[in-house]
Amino acid sequence: MNKYITEFIGTMFLVLVVGVAAIGGTAGPMAPVAIGVILMVMIYAGGHISGGHYNPAVTLAVLIRGKINTGDAITYWIAQVGGALAAWAIVSFVFEIEGANVSAIKSVSKGLGAEILGTFALAYVVLNAATAKANNGNSFYGMAIGFTVMTCAFTFGGFSGGAFNPAVALGACLMKGFIWSDLWIYMVGCFGGGALAGFIFRLNNPDDL
Amino acid sequence: MNKYITEFIGTMFLVLVVGVAAIGGTAGPMAPVAIGVILMVMIYAGGHISGGHYNPAVTLAVLIRGKINTGDAITYWIAQVGGALAAWAIVSFVFEIEGANVSAIKSVSKGLGAEILGTFALAYVVLNAATAKANNGNSFYGMAIGFTVMTCAFTFGGFSGGAFNPAVALGACLMKGFIWSDLWIYMVGCFGGGALAGFIFRLNNPDDL
Amino acid sequence: MNKYITEFIGTMFLVLVVGVAAIGGTAGPMAPVAIGVILMVMIYAGGHISGGHYNPAVTLAVLIRGKINTGDAITYWIAQVGGALAAWAIVSFVFEIEGANVSAIKSVSKGLGAEILGTFALAYVVLNAATAKANNGNSFYGMAIGFTVMTCAFTFGGFSGGAFNPAVALGACLMKGFIWSDLWIYMVGCFGGGALAGFIFRLNNPDDL
Amino acid sequence: MNKYITEFIGTMFLVLVVGVAAIGGTAGPMAPVAIGVILMVMIYAGGHISGGHYNPAVTLAVLIRGKINTGDAITYWIAQVGGALAAWAIVSFVFEIEGANVSAIKSVSKGLGAEILGTFALAYVVLNAATAKANNGNSFYGMAIGFTVMTCAFTFGGFSGGAFNPAVALGACLMKGFIWSDLWIYMVGCFGGGALAGFIFRLNNPDDL
Repeated sequence: MNKYITEFIGTMFLVLVVGVAAIGGTAGPMAPVAIGVILMVMIYAGGHISGGHYNPAVTLAVLIRGKINTGDAITYWIAQVGGALAAWAIVSFVFEIEGANVSAIKSVSKGLGAEILGTFALAYVVLNAATAKANNGNSFYGMAIGFTVMTCAFTFGGFSGGAFNPAVALGACLMKGFIWSDLWIYMVGCFGGGALAGFIFRLNNPDDL
Repeated sequence: MNKYITEFIGTMFLVLVVGVAAIGGTAGPMAPVAIGVILMVMIYAGGHISGGHYNPAVTLAVLIRGKINTGDAITYWIAQVGGALAAWAIVSFVFEIEGANVSAIKSVSKGLGAEILGTFALAYVVLNAATAKANNGNSFYGMAIGFTVMTCAFTFGGFSGGAFNPAVALGACLMKGFIWSDLWIYMVGCFGGGALAGFIFRLNNPDDL
Repeated sequence: MNKYITEFIGTMFLVLVVGVAAIGGTAGPMAPVAIGVILMVMIYAGGHISGGHYNPAVTLAVLIRGKINTGDAITYWIAQVGGALAAWAIVSFVFEIEGANVSAIKSVSKGLGAEILGTFALAYVVLNAATAKANNGNSFYGMAIGFTVMTCAFTFGGFSGGAFNPAVALGACLMKGFIWSDLWIYMVGCFGGGALAGFIFRLNNPDDL
Repeated sequence: MNKYITEFIGTMFLVLVVGVAAIGGTAGPMAPVAIGVILMVMIYAGGHISGGHYNPAVTLAVLIRGKINTGDAITYWIAQVGGALAAWAIVSFVFEIEGANVSAIKSVSKGLGAEILGTFALAYVVLNAATAKANNGNSFYGMAIGFTVMTCAFTFGGFSGGAFNPAVALGACLMKGFIWSDLWIYMVGCFGGGALAGFIFRLNNPDDL
């Protein structure tokens, strides 16, 4: 039970910061820093309990890599969606923030490319920095993972809004920062990028499965 | 005695940077970075002696979690208030900085929400990154804690001024960066958020008490 | 094979971020942060497999220092050039970004000085932080290396564009962010700075060869 | 000999970044980040050889704390001054940068306060994070030390220019970023702050001498 609560809390804070700092605009041009850092700190806080996924695409990558079982993965996904819903409630009712209901994606091919590349980079870093046996006991995994999201948001955010996370995309649609008709792009891009990272890890680390 | 001096020095530098960089405005839009980083470095400098709280709400969370006794907690609170007073003296007499004496809180519900959420996140990260036995001996605790304050200041600072710390709120009132009639919001929000993190840690980590 | 794939993926993401964030301008003034951080995270993801060079000048420095053999170094160079070409393809065909085809170098002596100093600093940090036996098992090597590029890009970028990496220079020429007639400056500056760092490491660490 | 060369190289790069990024203005408002980070990376590169002081006031603090002997301290000071001179040569002859020859200090009391507080914080972090036996083998010391300079430069830089280091102050005078008639303020402030940190460490850590 502890790990599901941890996934719920971490995903809630991640989607909350996306909602307030980026959609609400409170962090201005530093929003990618705020988002990457809240992911980093929630990973350092919860990694020892749940692994600190906070992202259904990361959970898929870890499932393909073989470090979580299917039952746990499904429960993680439920907890992550629950966290996104809780963040949406706080953003709407406490801070009364609502997005402009305008698509963050001008071009489907660029938006899809941005989400695939960003989520691949994220899941590739997660699998190697946080699950490879050669990196056991390191202190850098949270910074590596959180800062990947930060740099991908700076780089690719202009093409897709920079979700790299289906739970973030869902929360952003609910908050009207993204639009529902774009949701499939995030689902295909994020789960596609995460799955690709899982398969490449298996190929490239045959002795660590 | 060493740990009380350490809490005094660390809290003094934290409140000093709040006073000069944020209330005095020297760091401009980078004030949340300056504040989060001074907390980080003071934790890395003093953590081995006092645990590096520098925040009465964190001390409350650690008390609830059971890693400090009541006598020490009270002395920590006195040292932290002393540090805030010393910072106020330096800010006023050396740098001759005074705030505008205007409330940082436009809406009580949003301000209270901001302080509860930010202080909860901070204390949750402290308890897990710096006191959970599974994270023993890590090198990331200071960065995790300091950067939580940075990201919460970027995200929630616009709603409450971003104290997440009763000693910071007291110092900011003395420096006229906050107003006295708002002080109760910081007290309720910060101690409430810290206490909540303490209880959730106990619930979620039954094997680590 | 695994290490060549790792060098290919890491160099591809590094050159991709250079192309999108800096040449494409998506990260604005934060481009040095985006570039330094993608290098950091790719080092943390791939360091345990290939050492995480992603830079032919770093590979030359490691060859001189004696931690890679000539055959591997040549294959690393091929993989790194391959990564730069792949990044160019993505930047051109997915994101349709093209630079202004204007020289980033106003003065040859300043541009050459910038590239020599920046690449020397980078390779000096790599050799000491990631290959010196006294620093075995540390968690800081990726941050030290990536942040060296970030700070050198902030400092010296105005004189040379801030490549510090022949694969980045090649990619930037292909993307028209740099011009072909300047390429020799990057080759001389980067390989020269890297080689110098290799020789100074040998001189200064006689017991660690 | 190795440690003196290491102090020379590290101090040279630190003063070089001060000269180019801050006095030359290439890093704009990010100059404190560039300066703090070059210090961090040079500490991670050279800490295992020389301890990574790069600052005569830090060497004084370490001397008072008892972790360096007087002969080595004097040679470190010579190497640090040599590094500052080398940086001045590069800044002047390669990049042709010269400051405006205007005082960075508007008020002596504020300037002196800024330098004492900043250098005290720096040396206090150095002694605790890098020399206290309880923190043996950590990976955070370079980040803690470099980021202390960054946050103090953001916070106190407006009052004194933010040297916190006599070698930096000397280099900045040579480069006309500071003026010679202010040099005594930096000498008194930096050596005073460093010495104070040394004495407080002795008082507060009686079991670690």
